[in-house]
Amino acid sequence: MENQQQSNQQSAQQAGQRRGPLVIIGGAEDREGDCIVLREFVRRAGGVKAHIAVLTAATSMPREVGDTYISAFTKIGAAEVEVINTEHPEDSDRQEAVEKIQRATGIFFTGGDQARIIELVKGTRIDQAIRERQSQGVVIGGTSAGAAMMPDTMIIEGDSATNPRVDAVDLGPGMGFLPGIAVDQHFSQRGRLGRLISALVQQPAILGIGIDEDTAVLVDGDEFEVVGQGSVTVVDESAATHNNLAGLLRDEGLAVCDVKLHILPQGYRFNMKTRRAILPGTAVPAPAMAQG
Amino acid sequence: MENQQQSNQQSAQQAGQRRGPLVIIGGAEDREGDCIVLREFVRRAGGVKAHIAVLTAATSMPREVGDTYISAFTKIGAAEVEVINTEHPEDSDRQEAVEKIQRATGIFFTGGDQARIIELVKGTRIDQAIRERQSQGVVIGGTSAGAAMMPDTMIIEGDSATNPRVDAVDLGPGMGFLPGIAVDQHFSQRGRLGRLISALVQQPAILGIGIDEDTAVLVDGDEFEVVGQGSVTVVDESAATHNNLAGLLRDEGLAVCDVKLHILPQGYRFNMKTRRAILPGTAVPAPAMAQG
Repeated sequence: MENQQQSNQQSAQQAGQRRGPLVIIGGAEDREGDCIVLREFVRRAGGVKAHIAVLTAATSMPREVGDTYISAFTKIGAAEVEVINTEHPEDSDRQEAVEKIQRATGIFFTGGDQARIIELVKGTRIDQAIRERQSQGVVIGGTSAGAAMMPDTMIIEGDSATNPRVDAVDLGPGMGFLPGIAVDQHFSQRGRLGRLISALVQQPAILGIGIDEDTAVLVDGDEFEVVGQGSVTVVDESAATHNNLAGLLRDEGLAVCDVKLHILPQGYRFNMKTRRAILPGTAVPAPAMAQG
Repeated sequence: MENQQQSNQQSAQQAGQRRGPLVIIGGAEDREGDCIVLREFVRRAGGVKAHIAVLTAATSMPREVGDTYISAFTKIGAAEVEVINTEHPEDSDRQEAVEKIQRATGIFFTGGDQARIIELVKGTRIDQAIRERQSQGVVIGGTSAGAAMMPDTMIIEGDSATNPRVDAVDLGPGMGFLPGIAVDQHFSQRGRLGRLISALVQQPAILGIGIDEDTAVLVDGDEFEVVGQGSVTVVDESAATHNNLAGLLRDEGLAVCDVKLHILPQGYRFNMKTRRAILPGTAVPAPAMAQG
């Protein structure tokens, strides 16, 4: 198992990918009961030795949201939890904020509006510090907007409960912690199949990952594992035989044929490179430990 | 084109299937504006010579709903529209009701609760009369509950906006006008991917057809064509490589790998036997005409 983990890390490094694990949560995770999803984040941050930095950039209520996560992570047993409140981009260049990132063994992005994360964090000094910590193996987690921003191309906003249409979704640059995928959150709860397919038709090489509420994908190298109450819907358009994008007008219905779909509940893993599910019961590589 | 239509009908007859076309509507179809979907039903019933029988069995407000369709079908140009109101099963054995079916060149089921259609119509004299008319080429249409009841196994009720679970859906016998499929309606609008997949995992040979609001599939032989504002989502689990149904408990998440999905907007056709989409621009077989 140790060998497998090492070879995962090597292949990730050879491919020029970053090394730290990711915990990508579909929103509305339990913060008061068993906290199954948040526990997995803290575990990857070092368990009772974890030192968590909470970024509230996405939310317009940073104090309340920050307090919620201080309470949740402390209850689970993290050694220290610090909030980084960035209401203006210059807040993200402050030395104090950078040092909180440098001390952190786990970095967590709250929910809110994903466009705020890009506006307030991307390209700042803490962004650079986060990437350094990620390359040292530190886990990055995020829920809802904090999940949406993970890919290099993110869904900024869009219509839920719609059939696929070009105008159903606005795309823009994300934080790029996990390239080559598109993430949508609150997936089953808000009926977002149409919106995710609308995003993917415009870039079919990208793998779509729809994450339910109180559910997360735990990314380690090329693989992720599902944990939580709901499911993860993997939408693979790479083998699609047809779409009608050429010449389509904005409000017309998208067509796409032979999309591949995988529904994965807790315990299932998925290899994003081979695009194959891995059934439970096979050995799960141990989570990469943060280097404190 | 005539040859293709003939051979479609022959193959349907050879397979022991019934002959009349079906217009299966995902609910909330336009009844006051352009009425694109309802027009296709009336067209198949004979156009301005159409004689429509409206069955209100599904609804607890038969008078209001009946009046709505009298008004819509008359406005489109149907020659005659008669409502068959069946509030008790014995109403469906009345000679007067049977004669309305025998005169009809198009039979239409309104929305409401699909279980009421089974309870009030199935096995009655008008059921028998409907099947006779269908074998003579008369079109049967239905919206919402009137769409759900079309297959031999129907979704009685279930949770919208949920991940797939065994307890997400209750199945039971439908009217069986189109065997071998499962229909779900209000599909994108209510986020019903999870519910349809929950139904299909229990019988993967069946083809899933999720129909959006103000959208219909026009079934003729082995093929259907999509018409309306939304899309039809075809869910094909016949090639699925894995599911976790064995040993699964009621409230646990279903897993299923390698489901095939097709998103088809207006103008696209689909062959339910070959399970392949047919792109717009190829010759569309003319709708089978009702024999008056």
